Amino acid sequence: MHRCQHSASSTACEMIFAIFLPHGYDQSSPSTPALYYLSGLTCTDQNFSQKAGAFQHADAAGIALVLPDTSPRGESVADDAGYDLGQGAGFYINATQDPWKSHFQMENYIQKELPVVVNAQFPGISATLRSISGHSMGGHGALTLAFKSRLAGESAWLSVSAFAPICHPTACPWGKKAFENYLGSIEDGMGHDATELLKQLAEKSLLYEEILIDQGLNDEFLHEQLGLDDFETTAQAVGQTLTVRRHEGMDHSYYFIAACVADHIDFHAKILKSA
Amino acid sequence: MHRCQHSASSTACEMIFAIFLPHGYDQSSPSTPALYYLSGLTCTDQNFSQKAGAFQHADAAGIALVLPDTSPRGESVADDAGYDLGQGAGFYINATQDPWKSHFQMENYIQKELPVVVNAQFPGISATLRSISGHSMGGHGALTLAFKSRLAGESAWLSVSAFAPICHPTACPWGKKAFENYLGSIEDGMGHDATELLKQLAEKSLLYEEILIDQGLNDEFLHEQLGLDDFETTAQAVGQTLTVRRHEGMDHSYYFIAACVADHIDFHAKILKSA
Repeated sequence: MHRCQHSASSTACEMIFAIFLPHGYDQSSPSTPALYYLSGLTCTDQNFSQKAGAFQHADAAGIALVLPDTSPRGESVADDAGYDLGQGAGFYINATQDPWKSHFQMENYIQKELPVVVNAQFPGISATLRSISGHSMGGHGALTLAFKSRLAGESAWLSVSAFAPICHPTACPWGKKAFENYLGSIEDGMGHDATELLKQLAEKSLLYEEILIDQGLNDEFLHEQLGLDDFETTAQAVGQTLTVRRHEGMDHSYYFIAACVADHIDFHAKILKSA
Repeated sequence: MHRCQHSASSTACEMIFAIFLPHGYDQSSPSTPALYYLSGLTCTDQNFSQKAGAFQHADAAGIALVLPDTSPRGESVADDAGYDLGQGAGFYINATQDPWKSHFQMENYIQKELPVVVNAQFPGISATLRSISGHSMGGHGALTLAFKSRLAGESAWLSVSAFAPICHPTACPWGKKAFENYLGSIEDGMGHDATELLKQLAEKSLLYEEILIDQGLNDEFLHEQLGLDDFETTAQAVGQTLTVRRHEGMDHSYYFIAACVADHIDFHAKILKSA
């Protein structure tokens, strides 16, 4: 595992990310597939690397893991006293409002800038074999960045999965607060809402072959914040194949992620290796 | 996993420990073997549970994991500004000196009290199929508690392994500081030094069949604090079968533990299941 710091132009600040390279990574051949994992509110690049227990599975699968931070950071970067706004809570969108817009451009960072940096610094990483996953706010990020990439005709992410994602942010407190502050209104968040985007994906026949979501049934945020039922209902209505696994007794923590992460790696590995 | 708090008589304070129970644990039958894992300086019960990625391996092996804290804690418990003395640094010995002796009785706590508490609260845990491991200060704890139990004719721990253990504490700064403060002199630490105890074990023909130690070669503490070469030399001299695996590029962190922990679980499981 490497932790890397770089000056990001999209967020106009220093950004840190971590990358795990499997045995077999060869910098002379850009062939190692990469799974990007987006973390949730309050997290940095370190939560997953320290707590998910994923490295041996990724190593066995021959897949690199790219672990970005969740927001711009620094003394010159705007922040808020709430844990769900500002630093640690970038929501994987591009802010249009002050004081956020000068640094909070996390969609551009993850979607455009970071993959270029990763492929330049780690030339054994494939520029095309790339998938995305994430947890909670990062699950929202994974789903929406994947969907928006397809809608933009880019299809940068070959597969997408999520752990306890925020599925319907325009209808939950976390999402409403983020959209109101970063974009100026909840309505402007409609284009960054996985449940809404899924309808557009279906209209343009751009659905994924399969999406995997794990969800703990003891998750304290499930009913108020995550909107999984809305997403599942929409998926059924539009014909999106969606595997939702609900787990008795599991919560919103990294214990839950650790219990499910091997299956997510296998899910992505199967698609990445047949591409 | 359960986190449990109880009033401990040995340390005269509230103590927290965690326990992971595998599938197949049956409280009506005291048959599940238990591996006790002792953490290092500054740690609590949470470092291993959150960072080692060990639960799936323990589950597959059918073994419970018992994760104690590293010291007594609380406002009424003595402490020191240094990270290597006082709370978080109990050294798994019974202090004889003020201000430590009233609470710092970690040998009694781990060796005597905690197993009784565990077996009372979790009646599916075997009272006899019990092994011990640990990291750094906890590796010292695992080795010395196992050796002392055999020397006392109790053989409470069927097998012992360690991750980057403090092997020769009377000869390193961490150990000297602990023994001087808790026991009054370095000399009094001789009976709590794995390298010294191993000689006594050999004299009384009480050697373990095999001991497993993993060690990272990029471990910043290896040369000044850990004394692995001294322990290995003594093991060879007295005929203790010792597997030391030295790992290029690995450090003293939980990344190192996560990379090696499955093999330790397998090492203990093999012995526990044939006992």
